[in-house]
Amino acid sequence: MFKSILVPFDGSQGAEAALAKAAALAQLCGAELTLLTVYRHHSLLEASMHMLRPDEPADLDDIMRSHAKEVAERGKSLVVESGISAPRAFVKAGPVARTITGFAKERRHDLIVIGSRGLGSLEGVLLGSVSHKVTSLSETPVLVI
Amino acid sequence: MFKSILVPFDGSQGAEAALAKAAALAQLCGAELTLLTVYRHHSLLEASMHMLRPDEPADLDDIMRSHAKEVAERGKSLVVESGISAPRAFVKAGPVARTITGFAKERRHDLIVIGSRGLGSLEGVLLGSVSHKVTSLSETPVLVI
Repeated sequence: MFKSILVPFDGSQGAEAALAKAAALAQLCGAELTLLTVYRHHSLLEASMHMLRPDEPADLDDIMRSHAKEVAERGKSLVVESGISAPRAFVKAGPVARTITGFAKERRHDLIVIGSRGLGSLEGVLLGSVSHKVTSLSETPVLVI
Repeated sequence: MFKSILVPFDGSQGAEAALAKAAALAQLCGAELTLLTVYRHHSLLEASMHMLRPDEPADLDDIMRSHAKEVAERGKSLVVESGISAPRAFVKAGPVARTITGFAKERRHDLIVIGSRGLGSLEGVLLGSVSHKVTSLSETPVLVI
């Protein structure tokens, strides 16, 4: 049925629900499961702010990348708990929805499983709009949980 | 995994692709498969037109309902060809996306499988926007093919 499932994972409750469904579906289909955590690039605006406030951390990108890696590791451990050994997890920077759909196309995933919204978290609200953009842009089937 | 899958079916190529995936998934999960064909109510505008052009058919609703039934029967036969016996097919009138999500909630379907777009057909273009509305409105997981 499905051979290679991609789960965009941002650590929100919606993403955790999507991950649980994706893991069950992967086990049912004998599919590979891959996690992708996307963070946004340090913007030009933030760069200007940094010139005005030099006591801010030197490289926001580093901080965001490091946070994204922690989120991805947390996702990976959830997958392992669900009984799937050695899931793959990637961290990428870029515009969230386009990075997800581009990654899925490039690596020939045949399903994206994504959360629709978190419950009361800012990430959740953002993820809501991301799931919309992903279904619009994606050439790959998308399961919205 | 899934127990009760709903496929909104409008006869477009996108809907046929969704139906094929849904049938495979239903077989894998041992789920029931239900088709739903929704047609729009004869609008007030059309009623006014009818007063101006009395040679038009007496009841557009009847014609639309009858066409929707043919579409639903075609969908049913596609499901039977895929090896699932006695699928259920329903025809309903109303606003398309809301009717689909309301039906799924009321009848406790646990997955909606919907086509994203047809290939060059007007129905396909319309279905594209319907799949968007369905993912927005739905409390049920939605698989967009």
